[in-house]
Amino acid sequence: MSKTVLIVFAHPDPKSLTRQLTDVAIEALENQGHRVLVSDLYGMGWKAVYDDGDFPARRDPERLDFAAESSHAYETGTQPADVVAEQKKILAADAVILQFPLWWFGMPAILKGWIDRVWARGLAYGIGGTGNQHRYGEGGFAGRRALVSVTTGGPAKDYAPRGINGPLDQILFPLTHGALFYPGMDVLPIHALHGVNQLTPEGAETAKAAWRARLEHLFEEQPIRFRAQNGGDYPDHHTLADDVAPGVSGLPAHTAA
Amino acid sequence: MSKTVLIVFAHPDPKSLTRQLTDVAIEALENQGHRVLVSDLYGMGWKAVYDDGDFPARRDPERLDFAAESSHAYETGTQPADVVAEQKKILAADAVILQFPLWWFGMPAILKGWIDRVWARGLAYGIGGTGNQHRYGEGGFAGRRALVSVTTGGPAKDYAPRGINGPLDQILFPLTHGALFYPGMDVLPIHALHGVNQLTPEGAETAKAAWRARLEHLFEEQPIRFRAQNGGDYPDHHTLADDVAPGVSGLPAHTAA
Repeated sequence: MSKTVLIVFAHPDPKSLTRQLTDVAIEALENQGHRVLVSDLYGMGWKAVYDDGDFPARRDPERLDFAAESSHAYETGTQPADVVAEQKKILAADAVILQFPLWWFGMPAILKGWIDRVWARGLAYGIGGTGNQHRYGEGGFAGRRALVSVTTGGPAKDYAPRGINGPLDQILFPLTHGALFYPGMDVLPIHALHGVNQLTPEGAETAKAAWRARLEHLFEEQPIRFRAQNGGDYPDHHTLADDVAPGVSGLPAHTAA
Repeated sequence: MSKTVLIVFAHPDPKSLTRQLTDVAIEALENQGHRVLVSDLYGMGWKAVYDDGDFPARRDPERLDFAAESSHAYETGTQPADVVAEQKKILAADAVILQFPLWWFGMPAILKGWIDRVWARGLAYGIGGTGNQHRYGEGGFAGRRALVSVTTGGPAKDYAPRGINGPLDQILFPLTHGALFYPGMDVLPIHALHGVNQLTPEGAETAKAAWRARLEHLFEEQPIRFRAQNGGDYPDHHTLADDVAPGVSGLPAHTAA
């Protein structure tokens, strides 16, 4: 069945690997019969900085409370047009792919600013004005998949379970769990291409083939089993129950075995 | 002895808690006889997006390789003036404080873009053209302390060892370990003020007093004992030795007991 996929990518160079992997994905998904929407953040001149320009009809002109103004702008239909357009793309999508180079162990600022600005209160969090009642597994972006596809300069071994940088799934936990699962998306395991600084032309072709192959199962893959806030593992909505992952603390405790 | 402290903060509202905590720090540090430099990222209109504007004298006009262009711009003295000014402030400082609200479990885009743009190759990484020989504990920013001071909307229990968001020190590991320790800074334990959405005026005063008190020991506190790449724990500079934190994997393995 035909689906809609949004690809958001963050590199300004049309010859970059980020752009090449984006083009591979567009072609592969369209060949599968899917509709592909693209947000080329650099090409669009995306405004990265979340500021008073995001709230042209302020609830409180004296005090810039981002969360309160975000609710107000969302509810009153006064969000900026670029933000509304991105929200519409996400809501139209069955899957969202983020493609970016890992910069200082996180997203390039332009992509972080896409999340900062587009994840409105009332939509991505605080839905229905009920505070944190609906988060981590349910929320305004529920019903769609998310896939983070990242390139790194350093070698894979630096990101191994005992590699010096830390494991990639833990480094990107603030994104996968904190930004994507939080508003309800089903997050797939990260797709990583390491060592791009040493990549040969053959290596690049192999990587593109692997990416193409991965995308064939985009809608069949098992998502990461992050624990839902309201699934019973967090009886008070804050803390893991004693009998859930007993003795485990830190990020790994929030993924079911 | 009088020291120099750089405070970088990221909130546009002069009445924000971020700004209030910044003002508390300026006053407390100046009262101790220190010199304080301030980077008000919103006030400066800091350019968050790292792009071709950062490389006015390109090494390769055909292909935008950020790392290669970063080296080239740094070595040839063709970096933008705003980037050079921030690098000078860091190099003049004995301690760097980052003060920001936690947005989607990370830095606001404007602050991420400060790191993306200011952490030049040849300075913050790849010093001496020796690739990754000098990183994690040594590098261009060695000899100075770093302190991350963050405010969160959610309550402290959500960031506890088994709290639903994950522990704050693991969520911010990409910043503390990946961006600050990497180029050689001595990173102090994170200073967190949680639950700011529910903060009473009395709570705010208590928080300011705690922040003031913490800053009295800025130069005596024990830094986080992140393991240095060249300290012996990573014999091949990539992977922890078997006898170091045996059986431990993930982020906690990179901090000594």
